[in-house]
Amino acid sequence: MGLNAYLRNAWYVAAWSTEVTRGLLERTVLEQSIVLYRKENGEVAAIGNACPHRFAPLHLGKLVGDTIQCGYHGLRFDSSGACVHNPHAGGMIPPKMKVPQYTLVERHGMIWLWFGDADKADPASIPDFSCHLDPDLAFVGGVIEMKANYELITDNLLDLAHGEFVHEGLLSSPAITNSKLETIQKGTTIWSNRWMPDGEALPAHAMLWEHFTPGKNCDQWAYMRWDAPAHMLLDVGITGLNRPRTEGAWVYGTDILTPKDAHNTYYFWGITRAYKTKDPAAGELWRQVIKGAFEGQDQVIIEAQQRMLGNRSLEEANAVMFASDVAAQRARKLLASLIDKGIVPDPQNPDLREQRRASEVTSSPITPAV
Amino acid sequence: MGLNAYLRNAWYVAAWSTEVTRGLLERTVLEQSIVLYRKENGEVAAIGNACPHRFAPLHLGKLVGDTIQCGYHGLRFDSSGACVHNPHAGGMIPPKMKVPQYTLVERHGMIWLWFGDADKADPASIPDFSCHLDPDLAFVGGVIEMKANYELITDNLLDLAHGEFVHEGLLSSPAITNSKLETIQKGTTIWSNRWMPDGEALPAHAMLWEHFTPGKNCDQWAYMRWDAPAHMLLDVGITGLNRPRTEGAWVYGTDILTPKDAHNTYYFWGITRAYKTKDPAAGELWRQVIKGAFEGQDQVIIEAQQRMLGNRSLEEANAVMFASDVAAQRARKLLASLIDKGIVPDPQNPDLREQRRASEVTSSPITPAV
Amino acid sequence: MGLNAYLRNAWYVAAWSTEVTRGLLERTVLEQSIVLYRKENGEVAAIGNACPHRFAPLHLGKLVGDTIQCGYHGLRFDSSGACVHNPHAGGMIPPKMKVPQYTLVERHGMIWLWFGDADKADPASIPDFSCHLDPDLAFVGGVIEMKANYELITDNLLDLAHGEFVHEGLLSSPAITNSKLETIQKGTTIWSNRWMPDGEALPAHAMLWEHFTPGKNCDQWAYMRWDAPAHMLLDVGITGLNRPRTEGAWVYGTDILTPKDAHNTYYFWGITRAYKTKDPAAGELWRQVIKGAFEGQDQVIIEAQQRMLGNRSLEEANAVMFASDVAAQRARKLLASLIDKGIVPDPQNPDLREQRRASEVTSSPITPAV
Ligand code: FES
Ligand code: FES
Ligand code: FES
Repeated sequence: MGLNAYLRNAWYVAAWSTEVTRGLLERTVLEQSIVLYRKENGEVAAIGNACPHRFAPLHLGKLVGDTIQCGYHGLRFDSSGACVHNPHAGGMIPPKMKVPQYTLVERHGMIWLWFGDADKADPASIPDFSCHLDPDLAFVGGVIEMKANYELITDNLLDLAHGEFVHEGLLSSPAITNSKLETIQKGTTIWSNRWMPDGEALPAHAMLWEHFTPGKNCDQWAYMRWDAPAHMLLDVGITGLNRPRTEGAWVYGTDILTPKDAHNTYYFWGITRAYKTKDPAAGELWRQVIKGAFEGQDQVIIEAQQRMLGNRSLEEANAVMFASDVAAQRARKLLASLIDKGIVPDPQNPDLREQRRASEVTSSPITPAV
Repeated sequence: MGLNAYLRNAWYVAAWSTEVTRGLLERTVLEQSIVLYRKENGEVAAIGNACPHRFAPLHLGKLVGDTIQCGYHGLRFDSSGACVHNPHAGGMIPPKMKVPQYTLVERHGMIWLWFGDADKADPASIPDFSCHLDPDLAFVGGVIEMKANYELITDNLLDLAHGEFVHEGLLSSPAITNSKLETIQKGTTIWSNRWMPDGEALPAHAMLWEHFTPGKNCDQWAYMRWDAPAHMLLDVGITGLNRPRTEGAWVYGTDILTPKDAHNTYYFWGITRAYKTKDPAAGELWRQVIKGAFEGQDQVIIEAQQRMLGNRSLEEANAVMFASDVAAQRARKLLASLIDKGIVPDPQNPDLREQRRASEVTSSPITPAV
Repeated sequence: MGLNAYLRNAWYVAAWSTEVTRGLLERTVLEQSIVLYRKENGEVAAIGNACPHRFAPLHLGKLVGDTIQCGYHGLRFDSSGACVHNPHAGGMIPPKMKVPQYTLVERHGMIWLWFGDADKADPASIPDFSCHLDPDLAFVGGVIEMKANYELITDNLLDLAHGEFVHEGLLSSPAITNSKLETIQKGTTIWSNRWMPDGEALPAHAMLWEHFTPGKNCDQWAYMRWDAPAHMLLDVGITGLNRPRTEGAWVYGTDILTPKDAHNTYYFWGITRAYKTKDPAAGELWRQVIKGAFEGQDQVIIEAQQRMLGNRSLEEANAVMFASDVAAQRARKLLASLIDKGIVPDPQNPDLREQRRASEVTSSPITPAV
């Protein structure tokens, strides 16, 4: 499969909700330049960014009510992409003067765009990231641009054992090495799960959990959920031996990848924590950890991988796999088959609130019912 | 027409006269690297910049009398491009050791190069920019490099109505919106004219004209003359209602575009003013206006257009035109047909001094007699 | 011959011995990314830099004993390129999990890699640079990366007469102009020699030789030895008229070029001096001269040449040669023929110590016996 074959029948995140304001935001998704803004009634609009007149990018213009006025000759386009005003003599508007409108849904604090067949644009195929907006939890997030194909980043996330090497001193522990990785698939959702009972705390966990006692073993877990094309939610945390998860430090890690093009990716990351939810410093600490770990370490190695690969895919370069690659390879194959057949993903969307109710009595995460 | 089809049978400006000195000036015109210098008698020479020996660029060498000594092995080339000295043992010079000589004319304070058929190199086909050197007027000028195809810049200049959007606050006024754009063609010269009698002053005009009285209507005009391939002269100004133009603030704006290659252009700009001709501050003010308007605004949008277009021409990208594009489209079509047929442009060269004599009694500019 | 046709059956320098330590050094040679390190017993290892698992560059990992641990998932590779440790569950290692091992020799203070047929990898075809390690001499050296094809740099070195123009004031003298350039070939070794008896000192020589007396003529010499593909040793110096060379200032200049790819070259330079061998300041002065002359002057002009040539070779660009190019052209033709026929170079390796013994009685360098 070539690097720039994309799954069209899928929802892609173009922005965090908070990024879309009464300004003009440009994002390039699946090689298409798009401009996003919020209408006066708060709804989000997303239209093609290339003015059909002379190709000035519309995001260099300005909002006039709910229309974008092109910064070059002042044509105005509404949120459907239609040209609705020509300020010049006569004011005639040729029928072809329009840009594409993108189907979108604002959900889970994110703007999701649809690039596929119009009749298949069902928001039910958006994976569940409702934790972002859960009033009982606290959220921090951001977006990083990486110069690498998005599937190389998926590989990274579906095998967290790289932590021991890439994030040595932060994510290394015999608790990881001694635990087993479980790969589960249901519908088009894949889990890559690691349950680490009665083990030594990972240094990052020890740092984040205020009740951590040096020398005492803990229960820890890292459950990664993947949905096509590259939408991941990690359920990760630490607590006392056999203690409720809510007594520990527990977060959802959001990792949603949106291909800008075959060699560039937006990485939407989020941390939704179930502890110290009223303490902004706990969120700020996570922001620093992410900056250090993702930008300082993963990004360096992933972009270096891409440079070594050049225009080859992993397959074309004859990469040699081993056991740890099971989840990543399963995701790659599933995605390739969805692309091939044009099938819309069918995420399982297990109930996150139910997980959290159960967590009040046990440390063990709920294994998805398969 | 591909982006890098050029009109070869035409004169192109390579430099302002003042830029060509006893140093070595490199310019790339129509994808050819050229070195220009002034001989001891003051004449200008222009020869190929690639030393035929090992392709060191000659402009890294130095002048020895009227020859360029290559900075690598010291071969010397005269203004005809011939190698006239080999400092090495024997001193033999192979007959092929020569670079092209470019036919040139120094006229109107500029160096014009000819790239076409030798027998058609008639300076009569150089458009009239004699205002630059008119002792009754005062000139400032410069050159800007833009990362865009030259025709995108021509489009910009042949429809000054973009001023209301790109230069909002500087060039916006109901006087523009209420006036009519007149497009006239004679021979291969095209005018795009806007006569704006009895209207509100453009902010830029109000700023530049010392006798401007807030609240009082004025007569204003903007007459753009285009000659192929991309040589424009704007006659623009403001004066009192029905008052002689010489009482107002009146300038010629020079806009000459020379393609470096399909994606890069030298923009030779000049302002020749008919007011405050003894006041250098008036020239300096223009330099600031041009810097702010051309570099700060037009250049940003034109280079963004080029990035959106990539390697496509406007036609290939299916640009949608409207009424304001009449002059720009006429110029594009005329140029394409000249390129196609190899025809030398035939500029009308109307007498600029006659215009200025008439201006002593009326505000209205002379419409070219057609 | 295309720009990226390389002589595969030859030794290439990848690094100075001192650059290869217990760290990981990346070098790209003949378009192959290679990682070099020193084993615990002091031997040098060189293996392919692309981890076969997911193409993280191994040089971003770390040494564990004599193995490289990949910085991504921790696979370990030994100096033969074999994967010898998988830290993940099961620890199974697929047989294909290996990287190429490069045949190498550490000689003359440099690491030489072999890229050709295994049965032809005979260290006897490494040219003699034993001066680097001669205890009676003193050495300084370094490596410069140039954005130019290596043959353009060979051209530069095989015609030192460019010094008069590129290094005016440093290397210009009538002693050069009045002397004759002698080109000698024996086997696949070519000499480009200039013997300059009884002449004015080059400014650089005057500066470096403490016994130089202004106004007094000297004997000077510059004997360049070339071996394919681009391994050069210059024997250059100044002494009194008919005085032993050991009384003067005499150095060997090492110029070894290793193609990174068709447009980028490692330039390994060295200066091994036969005077003031105990004075580090004399070495430091040379380091400054090299920095000023190579980086400040040659590099500027050679990289400009490459830009003028673009993707063309000198031949494709129809370069015009003259008498001074004899040695450079002979080297180019010989190299092209070796590449064409896949022949291993056969360097003459004249005895450098013998030269130095003779130098104790005469200023004249030994002409290679041909
Ligand atoms: S380019 Fe947008 S209005 Fe002209
Ligand atoms: S490159 Fe110009 S003289 Fe050699
Ligand atoms: S990329 Fe090297 S171990 Fe995975």
